[in-house]
Amino acid sequence: MLAAALHDGSAYRRTTFEVFARRLPEGRRYGVVAGTARFVEALAQFRFDDAALASLEDFLDGETLAYLADYRFRGDVDGYAEGELYFPGSPVLSVSGTFGECVVLETLALSILNHDTAIASAAARMVSAAEGRPLIEMGSRRTHEQAAVAAARAAYIAGFTGSSNLAAQRRYGVPALGTSAHAFTLLHSSPDGPDERAAFRAQIDALGVDTTLLVDTYDITTGVRNAVEVAGPQLGAVRIDSGDLGVLARQVRKQLDSLGAIRTKIVVSGDLDEFGIAALRAEPVDSYGVGTSVVTGSGAPTASMVYKLVEVDGLPVEKRSTNKESHGGRKQALRLSRSSGTIVEEVVHPAAEPPPPEPGLIARTLTVPHVQAGEPVADPGLAAARERVSAGLGSLPWDGLKLSRGEPAVPTRIIAPGTTRRDV
Amino acid sequence: MLAAALHDGSAYRRTTFEVFARRLPEGRRYGVVAGTARFVEALAQFRFDDAALASLEDFLDGETLAYLADYRFRGDVDGYAEGELYFPGSPVLSVSGTFGECVVLETLALSILNHDTAIASAAARMVSAAEGRPLIEMGSRRTHEQAAVAAARAAYIAGFTGSSNLAAQRRYGVPALGTSAHAFTLLHSSPDGPDERAAFRAQIDALGVDTTLLVDTYDITTGVRNAVEVAGPQLGAVRIDSGDLGVLARQVRKQLDSLGAIRTKIVVSGDLDEFGIAALRAEPVDSYGVGTSVVTGSGAPTASMVYKLVEVDGLPVEKRSTNKESHGGRKQALRLSRSSGTIVEEVVHPAAEPPPPEPGLIARTLTVPHVQAGEPVADPGLAAARERVSAGLGSLPWDGLKLSRGEPAVPTRIIAPGTTRRDV
Repeated sequence: MLAAALHDGSAYRRTTFEVFARRLPEGRRYGVVAGTARFVEALAQFRFDDAALASLEDFLDGETLAYLADYRFRGDVDGYAEGELYFPGSPVLSVSGTFGECVVLETLALSILNHDTAIASAAARMVSAAEGRPLIEMGSRRTHEQAAVAAARAAYIAGFTGSSNLAAQRRYGVPALGTSAHAFTLLHSSPDGPDERAAFRAQIDALGVDTTLLVDTYDITTGVRNAVEVAGPQLGAVRIDSGDLGVLARQVRKQLDSLGAIRTKIVVSGDLDEFGIAALRAEPVDSYGVGTSVVTGSGAPTASMVYKLVEVDGLPVEKRSTNKESHGGRKQALRLSRSSGTIVEEVVHPAAEPPPPEPGLIARTLTVPHVQAGEPVADPGLAAARERVSAGLGSLPWDGLKLSRGEPAVPTRIIAPGTTRRDV
Repeated sequence: MLAAALHDGSAYRRTTFEVFARRLPEGRRYGVVAGTARFVEALAQFRFDDAALASLEDFLDGETLAYLADYRFRGDVDGYAEGELYFPGSPVLSVSGTFGECVVLETLALSILNHDTAIASAAARMVSAAEGRPLIEMGSRRTHEQAAVAAARAAYIAGFTGSSNLAAQRRYGVPALGTSAHAFTLLHSSPDGPDERAAFRAQIDALGVDTTLLVDTYDITTGVRNAVEVAGPQLGAVRIDSGDLGVLARQVRKQLDSLGAIRTKIVVSGDLDEFGIAALRAEPVDSYGVGTSVVTGSGAPTASMVYKLVEVDGLPVEKRSTNKESHGGRKQALRLSRSSGTIVEEVVHPAAEPPPPEPGLIARTLTVPHVQAGEPVADPGLAAARERVSAGLGSLPWDGLKLSRGEPAVPTRIIAPGTTRRDV
């Protein structure tokens, strides 16, 4: 495409591409934007070095190779801040510049946003299901080794307390949290058989009594007794990773209390998703470890966002493929809420035509600048993104937080250029 | 765990960890191992540099930090070759060495194998559904930006013809293939409206008539007519990316033939998975572009493999958590087949106790060395892995290739140390 567009000169036309999702994953009521800051960071490094150019020599002409050798994005990027909720049709990101400089960014923008948004959207449902109890992301083993780092970051944005991924701590400041694995208990075996107490003793000697002991490698009741005998009643926590977590949590709580370990917490893990977390609300569970479900988006591993050309030289353009219509024109968005804070509508409007105020409703602009003339705008960081998610969840209508399948929590109104018609 | 194990000396015990899946993704009849060579490559680079150590200083003691500073894996890795089929309980990878050197590899080994195997397993179903027609992987936009490169590689191992991911070509030699996007057609718009012919002409001028023109940006019938008028009847292919692909393929084939473009091929894409591919078997489709479904494992984005300690100082160890039992002891595997080539059973046996031959059946050893005393064994490469998948699919019992939900195609027999009892 780039070669052909350079050839006929259209590569230098002014364009805007828009990232949006035609729909939320099936049955989801809202999504959470994540990845924007990672995209802006990656954009600054998006160049074609000699090795990359050499690998393209077989099928690109000299003009195209020269264009790529000089490539540097000098356009604008704006859109939703990380941590904002989004709905079908929300213009999550707009990339403006020449066709040539924008078209080569499709895969970069979508890969990052589709992945990180899928994780943050699933994670936010788990956070709301946990009703304030801490969640630890521990799913690195169940996704690609680099995706794991981005997943830890996205889950943290959504409200997880931390992650077992050390690279995410190093790279993004995500708090590192974790417990031990069954292997550590199994390691303490001898020809006489297993020795769970030796494993617990070793862990306490190294990390103190405020650690979390994994009590279900063999028999849980014996495990809890061993844990408290070795650590004393000041033991920080025990982890249960298998079985009927609700029943076991109650049994273990009773046993811990009877042993005087009344402040020892109970961490549960093992194939938990938002539904499993919600099902444990009434149980004496202090925190959750979540793995596979959060790093794979709990059934929706991609946000299915698309990157569509919406404007060329100031003119709106639209695709008309069956079921894949796009809405032309560069857009911005605002969100309307009642004075109570509850949101009622997402309004997507032409960038140059802000809609008139709606009496009695508060309008908040969602579109903020991320890159201006190729220069990144300062990012407010993960703490701000976490606050945005928290505020967003608090602003949903009452049924927006339901975990069951449903429609998007609020409608999206897309205002076409020069009109006020309702489209979605 | 490492700190505690170094503290009490158990970090130096000789151990074997095993990577296996307790079950296949729901309803799957086989899986395809992928990622092993990527793991071996990553293992050679698995070190802790000063920056990594500095980020660990807050919660690791001096002894542990010193251990990590000197870390280099000097043990053995063996297991299934890339492209081998696997079943529940198959010992896909064994990592042997001291507890300290093996325990820190869990996340690395599982991340790579769980991701790549999930993709290859889904991709193989699509390859068998396509019955010899070429498949192009074009899902980079729907997964993490680095996972995309590994996904292209895994799909290629499973039998895809190539990928639109250029990094996968550069890094792994996966053939680069692709077509143009709707944006390229939309770009060719003016105040007078869209100009599809100008877009096609630009593409043909740059790439010749043997290219693939995307004909569904506006009206497909007009698109096909424009394509043949601009390119002539020697046009390489047209792509249809929306609508009822079967109906449209028939219409477009008829139209192409009537225009004399009898050799022009039809490429279809748009939310295809193995079921969609199979449903188009009777239609005049020449090749498939597959995106989201292959890079997300078509409903199973992780292979759910685990990394379990199975042996300590030569003694088998086993976890007894509810529903999470492991089988102790270092293992190897062989596959039994009839003289026709059809496989009948996976046999997992203690590494030191090969089972007696089974009369009338052919036994093939599945366990091969990958790393010996820290040194990688030469990898036979992707072509060999592709042949293994092809041979594996051909060796399944007749119902093993069914796309519907079912049981694993062959049973796995796990022989416990010193016994011959059947476990799975």
